[in-house]
Amino acid sequence: MEKLFVIKIGGNIIDDEKKLSSFLQTFASIEGNKILVHGGGKLATELAGRLGIQQQMVEGRRITDAETLKIVTMVYAGYINKKMVAQLQANNCNAMGMCGADGNLILAHKRVPSGDTNIDYGFVGDIDSVNTALLQNFLENSISVVVAPITHNSQGQLLNTNADTIAQEMAKALSSLYTVQLIYCFEKKGVLLNVDDADSVIPLLIPSYYAELKTKQLIFSGMIPKLDNAFAALRNGVHRVIIGKAEELDNLLAGKAGTTISHE
Amino acid sequence: MEKLFVIKIGGNIIDDEKKLSSFLQTFASIEGNKILVHGGGKLATELAGRLGIQQQMVEGRRITDAETLKIVTMVYAGYINKKMVAQLQANNCNAMGMCGADGNLILAHKRVPSGDTNIDYGFVGDIDSVNTALLQNFLENSISVVVAPITHNSQGQLLNTNADTIAQEMAKALSSLYTVQLIYCFEKKGVLLNVDDADSVIPLLIPSYYAELKTKQLIFSGMIPKLDNAFAALRNGVHRVIIGKAEELDNLLAGKAGTTISHE
Repeated sequence: MEKLFVIKIGGNIIDDEKKLSSFLQTFASIEGNKILVHGGGKLATELAGRLGIQQQMVEGRRITDAETLKIVTMVYAGYINKKMVAQLQANNCNAMGMCGADGNLILAHKRVPSGDTNIDYGFVGDIDSVNTALLQNFLENSISVVVAPITHNSQGQLLNTNADTIAQEMAKALSSLYTVQLIYCFEKKGVLLNVDDADSVIPLLIPSYYAELKTKQLIFSGMIPKLDNAFAALRNGVHRVIIGKAEELDNLLAGKAGTTISHE
Repeated sequence: MEKLFVIKIGGNIIDDEKKLSSFLQTFASIEGNKILVHGGGKLATELAGRLGIQQQMVEGRRITDAETLKIVTMVYAGYINKKMVAQLQANNCNAMGMCGADGNLILAHKRVPSGDTNIDYGFVGDIDSVNTALLQNFLENSISVVVAPITHNSQGQLLNTNADTIAQEMAKALSSLYTVQLIYCFEKKGVLLNVDDADSVIPLLIPSYYAELKTKQLIFSGMIPKLDNAFAALRNGVHRVIIGKAEELDNLLAGKAGTTISHE
């Protein structure tokens, strides 16, 4: 099977023009199949602020009301997505910017309030399916795909969807067609053995070692959901998950930086 | 050759939720190849107003400065484009929303100030080429394309581009591959013989009749550039141009409403 990189970048790099431009240059230079999934950054919050739209937060999570959905659609699927696509084109990387509604790329449903908290997150989508045939068509035509974290429910409703989850679901869905490497770029150099030492990166994390670290409570609790998801992705066919810093994408790809999460 | 409809809608219909939804339903019901090009509507002006961004106008034309470009990219390529795509999906019409940077769809260059007026329109693009192979790939996969009026210059710069011109250039470029009908939807029922009588629609306009009407000064001067462009499109391979009201799309398609502009 051919290789495919699914790379997710978050707000910290999107908000930094210079770093973003350098990241996109490296992304453009990757040979072969690649998909970029991006989050939002501070722009949406900033725009909401300038427009006087209150951001409702419940238990640290943003509620997507109708006005907020409009803003994230504009900022994520409009400004950020198109700006990145134009920059990739300038780097000779033919890219297609999409949200989940385009070509029916990602079908989702509005999250139903449930559990003890019963929080209504508003127009937030949980993913039902990924259109792998469409992605394959692009990749076979040497077109890289840039995905904004907006999905739809096939009934005309756009939905705000977590970019980490989109990257993971795309990686899983495509793993029957490609040898998929899923790369999560975040603000740290990788998974740290000591949360206070930015350089204490664990180079390789396999299930037995992860279990040991969890037992010894040596994994920063904030990382556990991310890592549980990474191992779940591996169990669902993803070849490898790499977690590291966007500025080090080159080295992440070469296995010289970040944390590689793998079966063995 | 297979038929293709290239349909352009402007602001008046985009600003009216109910009319837009009914228009999209009709568009979705068109069998076969179809492309929708949309303008902006009042939303961009409204958003600029709310953000306190001054709209510079020179001789009745909007200047696209950096802040305005950001807004039109958000509103046109983000909010309006994705909202329409989601609605088309709800009507069982698989649609791909794009701007000119996506997949290198429309290459343009920044308009150079010239002529007597020497006006610098800012980040405004004049079209150099249309990627017909990409469009053909979508159409052959039964995917309709929805185009936002933003292009790029292949050097990383997005550019604001007139939607009428995009529709025309796409129709012309695709006329070697399809029998193209170009439909311009605007606020009137068609080309009027009497500008004060909204029902005085000229059903068929051929070159000789158009010349006669111009000589007799029976064509509203504001329509002349539009009509000159329509005849230019015909000379460049477009099969037929139809001008009429978006609310009457059904009848425009059936040749029962609007003005048909044709060789004979």
